[in-house]
Amino acid sequence: MTDPTADFPAPPTRLLMGPGPVNADPRVQLAQASALVGQFDPWMTDTMNQTAGLLRGVFATANEATFVVDGTSRAGIEAALVSLLEPGDRVLVPVLGRFGLLLAEIAERAGAVVTTIHRPWGEVFTPDEVEAAVLQHRPKLLALVQADTSTTMLQPLAEIGDLCHRHGVLSYVDATASIGGNPLHTDDWRLDVVTAGLQKCLGGPSGAAPITLSPAAVDVIRARRHVEAGISDGSAGRGLRIGSNYFDLAMIMDYWGEQRLNHHTEAATLLYATRECARLLLAEGVPRAAQRHALHGGAMAAGLVGLGLDLFGDQAHRMANVVAARIPAGVDGEDFRRELLVDYGIEIGTSFGPLAGTVWRIGVMGWNARRDAVLVTLAAMEQVLRRRGVPVEPGAGGRAARRHYDEAGAL
Amino acid sequence: MTDPTADFPAPPTRLLMGPGPVNADPRVQLAQASALVGQFDPWMTDTMNQTAGLLRGVFATANEATFVVDGTSRAGIEAALVSLLEPGDRVLVPVLGRFGLLLAEIAERAGAVVTTIHRPWGEVFTPDEVEAAVLQHRPKLLALVQADTSTTMLQPLAEIGDLCHRHGVLSYVDATASIGGNPLHTDDWRLDVVTAGLQKCLGGPSGAAPITLSPAAVDVIRARRHVEAGISDGSAGRGLRIGSNYFDLAMIMDYWGEQRLNHHTEAATLLYATRECARLLLAEGVPRAAQRHALHGGAMAAGLVGLGLDLFGDQAHRMANVVAARIPAGVDGEDFRRELLVDYGIEIGTSFGPLAGTVWRIGVMGWNARRDAVLVTLAAMEQVLRRRGVPVEPGAGGRAARRHYDEAGAL
Repeated sequence: MTDPTADFPAPPTRLLMGPGPVNADPRVQLAQASALVGQFDPWMTDTMNQTAGLLRGVFATANEATFVVDGTSRAGIEAALVSLLEPGDRVLVPVLGRFGLLLAEIAERAGAVVTTIHRPWGEVFTPDEVEAAVLQHRPKLLALVQADTSTTMLQPLAEIGDLCHRHGVLSYVDATASIGGNPLHTDDWRLDVVTAGLQKCLGGPSGAAPITLSPAAVDVIRARRHVEAGISDGSAGRGLRIGSNYFDLAMIMDYWGEQRLNHHTEAATLLYATRECARLLLAEGVPRAAQRHALHGGAMAAGLVGLGLDLFGDQAHRMANVVAARIPAGVDGEDFRRELLVDYGIEIGTSFGPLAGTVWRIGVMGWNARRDAVLVTLAAMEQVLRRRGVPVEPGAGGRAARRHYDEAGAL
Repeated sequence: MTDPTADFPAPPTRLLMGPGPVNADPRVQLAQASALVGQFDPWMTDTMNQTAGLLRGVFATANEATFVVDGTSRAGIEAALVSLLEPGDRVLVPVLGRFGLLLAEIAERAGAVVTTIHRPWGEVFTPDEVEAAVLQHRPKLLALVQADTSTTMLQPLAEIGDLCHRHGVLSYVDATASIGGNPLHTDDWRLDVVTAGLQKCLGGPSGAAPITLSPAAVDVIRARRHVEAGISDGSAGRGLRIGSNYFDLAMIMDYWGEQRLNHHTEAATLLYATRECARLLLAEGVPRAAQRHALHGGAMAAGLVGLGLDLFGDQAHRMANVVAARIPAGVDGEDFRRELLVDYGIEIGTSFGPLAGTVWRIGVMGWNARRDAVLVTLAAMEQVLRRRGVPVEPGAGGRAARRHYDEAGAL
């Protein structure tokens, strides 16, 4: 039993270079200690409106329905799917890795009839492959992950929204791992619903799921609007009631919108974090932040090759912010990670499913997409590799990364 | 559009004397700015274990299955109901007010067959009434709210768990508004599942939902255990899959338990807040915290009567931490609240449903269950009442509150 009279124990100092969460931007960290305010205080509702406005910039959208679901990234995914889908609706999920499987599972639990198409882990789909599957299965919704950290692949989306529009299919994209570090153009790409999280390239904590919905998606959801009994004026709801109260986006839109109908009590701490994450991204400039992630992610990739490691997956379609490197023969990947954490305070990622035990996943994102974070990680990895008898040319990792920086030019 | 280059705007200084959220304890506020750590870092898993241990003290339980659902209080409610209930299961909900209606609605969305029984707003049920309804309807689950802030009533629970056990019925209690400020004895009262929130008597933010489950409830949920496809070893799941991934308590227990199977990424900020809320409550002493809420809530009630206001509801069954006072004839309740907020920085609560426009709800809880918070609220209310022509004897509210403090003796 913990001694309840002990003070809050300080977390250890860690450099988080895994696939997320990563260290929060210190300004986001501090924003979370701001004072609470009542949920219908004019300052609070202004702050919600401002956050929605900033998030429109993050998503590159004019969608009025842009707000936050109170929960971790998968809360946003589930809110989108359970609100869009009715039991029996057909869904097509192109699966790149673990998180594609998650979308399929959440849609199945919502009662949808789910078809998945697959590429080997480490590859992406062509638009033609997706279109052929849409034509074959005629889904109501196409659901996919922009960047699946389990494989480090970034699915090109520029043509996906268009093809969905051509065939009368709604599109949903989970951009949790990509947003803020890779291009994402919700409106230009004609995507209907996009959800995200803060704990990757946005440099914030887990716990808030930004979401944006096109007018067409809003229409589908509003056709299922029912007001909660305790605050209803007695008017009847419409359509088949959404299967979840907490994730009922029709009700959450009534809370974020002008009606301000009470739903949950907004998690103010994470609203503050969301606002600050979005503000910092727009202050830097969305394209510039994507360039920064490409620069430092590229330097990490070059450095890992310099250390003698092989990269995993189709590098032409790698997400900017996570690199997977094959674990050298004879090295225990988990033991390596433990030494890196205990002796150097640096965390890198393990892997799942077909890749379990074969690759490390190294993240370079948000506040940690920085030259010093890249170079110190490579320096420490060199030490830990050498202690395991892996032949590493002294300094070769950092040298390759610095060469990448020199060639890319200063950002 | 918000200027993204502007700094994070400081929230206004508010004294939050509504039914919650209230001002966070400053130590809880600061804990939220602590550094992030990776989700499987030994420090992080230790912190999760410590938090679970502290929460057992808060819930007064030995239940191993005690942890946090990442979302606001209603996320905890939905997780409990969707994990315990299968479509077609019978549920009985004794409704005290708005939040009883919410339990019924969430259970309905989970596909349960819900029967509600009702008392007029402002009253509670006797155990005999509940038992008669259990015998009549033979539910799988009895679900009720310990304290419904919409009416300020505190449902006695001491005999409820026993009667459920006698009749083979599981019990679920939403203790969001009561926990930490009113007695709650999960094990002594033999309750199966209890959920809570931080933003009331625990003096924290909204966004985390502590939960505890008896071994019997765990058995019901584990009988529906399915591991997520992306991290499964291929073994088949059991029973009817729970209708939600995010709220699948079998999976969340696998994440909090020794297996440490990845589910969501724990919202570290709110975990830190939960840990600090629980630690502060145990350091004060759970019974002593309940006494403190009774003392200051009683002083507020006495002070409101001193101001000439009538209290609403059965005062013998009032929750310690919220008092409802009738709005005097001729006074616009919302206009009164606006002046109190704008001119004095003090927030009190409005009301819902059958009470809309007829009562104010005044909270005295968590960090704000303090003599100065009570007396300054009464002083400001006196000013605002007088400006509306309500005859108030000068100083009568504070005098009555101070008399209550004198008679109760120093805490």
